[in-house]
Amino acid sequence: MSLLVMKFGGTSVATLDCIRRAAGRVGREVAAGRDVIVIVSAMAGETNRLVGLVNDTSSMFDAREYDAVVSSGENVTAGLMAMTLQDMGVPARSWQGWQIPLRTTLAHTAARIEDIPTETIKGKFAEGMKVAVVAGFQGISPEDRITTLGRGGSDTTAVACAAAFGAEQCDIYTDVDGVYTTDPRITSKARKLEKIAFEEMLELASLGAKVLQTRSVELAMRYNVRLRVLSSFGDNDENTGTLVCAEEDIVERHVVAGVAHSRDEAKMTLVSVADRPGIAAAIFGPLAEAGVNVDMIVQNIAEEGRTDVTFSCPIDQVKGAEIAINAAREQGEINFHELVADIDVCKISIVGIGMRSYAGVAAKMFATLRDEGINIKVITTSEIKVSVLVDRKYMELAVQALHDAFGLEHAV
Amino acid sequence: MSLLVMKFGGTSVATLDCIRRAAGRVGREVAAGRDVIVIVSAMAGETNRLVGLVNDTSSMFDAREYDAVVSSGENVTAGLMAMTLQDMGVPARSWQGWQIPLRTTLAHTAARIEDIPTETIKGKFAEGMKVAVVAGFQGISPEDRITTLGRGGSDTTAVACAAAFGAEQCDIYTDVDGVYTTDPRITSKARKLEKIAFEEMLELASLGAKVLQTRSVELAMRYNVRLRVLSSFGDNDENTGTLVCAEEDIVERHVVAGVAHSRDEAKMTLVSVADRPGIAAAIFGPLAEAGVNVDMIVQNIAEEGRTDVTFSCPIDQVKGAEIAINAAREQGEINFHELVADIDVCKISIVGIGMRSYAGVAAKMFATLRDEGINIKVITTSEIKVSVLVDRKYMELAVQALHDAFGLEHAV
Repeated sequence: MSLLVMKFGGTSVATLDCIRRAAGRVGREVAAGRDVIVIVSAMAGETNRLVGLVNDTSSMFDAREYDAVVSSGENVTAGLMAMTLQDMGVPARSWQGWQIPLRTTLAHTAARIEDIPTETIKGKFAEGMKVAVVAGFQGISPEDRITTLGRGGSDTTAVACAAAFGAEQCDIYTDVDGVYTTDPRITSKARKLEKIAFEEMLELASLGAKVLQTRSVELAMRYNVRLRVLSSFGDNDENTGTLVCAEEDIVERHVVAGVAHSRDEAKMTLVSVADRPGIAAAIFGPLAEAGVNVDMIVQNIAEEGRTDVTFSCPIDQVKGAEIAINAAREQGEINFHELVADIDVCKISIVGIGMRSYAGVAAKMFATLRDEGINIKVITTSEIKVSVLVDRKYMELAVQALHDAFGLEHAV
Repeated sequence: MSLLVMKFGGTSVATLDCIRRAAGRVGREVAAGRDVIVIVSAMAGETNRLVGLVNDTSSMFDAREYDAVVSSGENVTAGLMAMTLQDMGVPARSWQGWQIPLRTTLAHTAARIEDIPTETIKGKFAEGMKVAVVAGFQGISPEDRITTLGRGGSDTTAVACAAAFGAEQCDIYTDVDGVYTTDPRITSKARKLEKIAFEEMLELASLGAKVLQTRSVELAMRYNVRLRVLSSFGDNDENTGTLVCAEEDIVERHVVAGVAHSRDEAKMTLVSVADRPGIAAAIFGPLAEAGVNVDMIVQNIAEEGRTDVTFSCPIDQVKGAEIAINAAREQGEINFHELVADIDVCKISIVGIGMRSYAGVAAKMFATLRDEGINIKVITTSEIKVSVLVDRKYMELAVQALHDAFGLEHAV
């Protein structure tokens, strides 16, 4: 019996009609002879409502209680989905994290899955159950407290279940119909990709293309889970989505798979830092402790014995970064002339596995931006990605120009 | 260390401000040197919302999935209450039913508590925790599925916890400030009782004075748990509520403790039933199977070999009762001339342990109603209760007259 994992995000289960529609998709897979594990998110808005209650209750809350509260939305959807399937004549039941039990680390609000025992659910399939509905986003800690997996965690529940149960495929139903070469709201030339490599998806996910939780892509890559992103709302036959798969399963490709952007970036520069061994640790240690997600880092020699250090972080963490750095300065751990924050920047990235074997991709990116008169403020590169910070006012222009320059409008 | 159980119903935790107020009461008990087990209901309206989702999903739902869905409201309150207490500096944590684990029967939607292991929570008290916040209304079945205890089930969770942990008292915080001699909305002469016996409370609870779930009073009586009903909103010093206790703990009492009423009653009469042995079983068997809650039953000899059978039931079950009885007639199990439903009646009851030793209480009730010109349609009696059905238009009048007649306005 082949086994399929199907995950439905919050917008895909936003109302009882949405749940019925999703259940209809599950029913069709069952009719085609498959057993199905369905992973559900909370109904759209519900997790935000619960987080709001927590935030209004306490500004310094116990993360264990936070998890106990915010995990409840998924329990509701799981029960409703199981009932809906039963109503359609499909043998189904729901599981909450503790019932499996889906074991995680102790890291409340951002726990990682450690173990998913499969015996109980497999036993129910053997008895004739056709669908196991699993509440996403949640598990239990070694102390038997409820944990959650972070925003988007249901994607990770889905991929982890697909790996644990050896599913043939993991289908992620969402409110977009696949992964695009770039944001279709920025250019109508954006094209849906039929396939994308895990590595590329990982870069896109972490670059702010919020289709999949990064962790779920990492897991899929590690366990080679065939992962498909497709629309909950699309017509059935044409709704093939995008397959996220191993590099070798993609025969033809562009050098660049996609152009990503991230709007809410800030650039911070410590001007004229007294340079000495260990200065990077002295700067970025306190930032990490303050919970600042530092992304790009650049260090330039400015003058004899002094240097400029520039980094980027999410715009809403600028205040925290300033506090952390000024505290380190007051404690004498670092010495600089000035701390300058530029909150009018955005990040533009090109991502593609093809870059590994083609030279000149970064040069082409820089030339394209130059031709549009766009000044580059910071550059970082990885094996399959080039990212730049530019003024935010150029964001759309930069994306459109790069999309054209790399010919992404047309399939290979 | 003395241990107190405090239960807060839905209106007592309706908003975050209500939760803070309730937490304040808990904090004062902790400051007075007590350990506390807090039982919480779902925030007012939340369980209804969840039940609505279930009903809109399916008309023939799986009770196990129903329980998984509707139990989630209590989990949210438990987490929020624990956070609020922590915020006030009180060491607290939440427990969901499965974490204790609070074991129940398999009877989903109306399960009974079977076992409450105390080791884990007692261990946490020994480590310095001051408050265990327990999600009310829920437990887990022998199959490790979530069960619920029926409407008002959090009262039962509270009393069962008080019994299991040997608490000195179980305080039920609600939106009324105690148990009254009758409904204060019907007569301003209604007087709050300082004490009431378990047996009396049991009759009042089952008569529709919706202060406590019947099952919780039964449990309190069996395990002799001191049970107090008091207001979540009252001023602290004067908020002594009503103590529900053993008969022997009440020294002075009226013969009648209170006058209860139940508005939504219907009287149904099977006219001229062919009388034979087993006819009662033939009528009330099918009614029980149809889920009709038959309350009063009266049988009169009407003529040779035939009899009238009258019973009362909740007004919204009249339709179901008619269907069940007509089906039994078609199958030849019963034979009658006519089925008459009177949906314009109400039930008035007087309750008091004193009736056991005083004769003439029922006669005084009947005389009082006669003096007001109120016709009695059906009478039933128990050791400590007399109930009558009268036309609904006389309900307020009957309650006021009886309250006066038995002198309930004044303390003994």
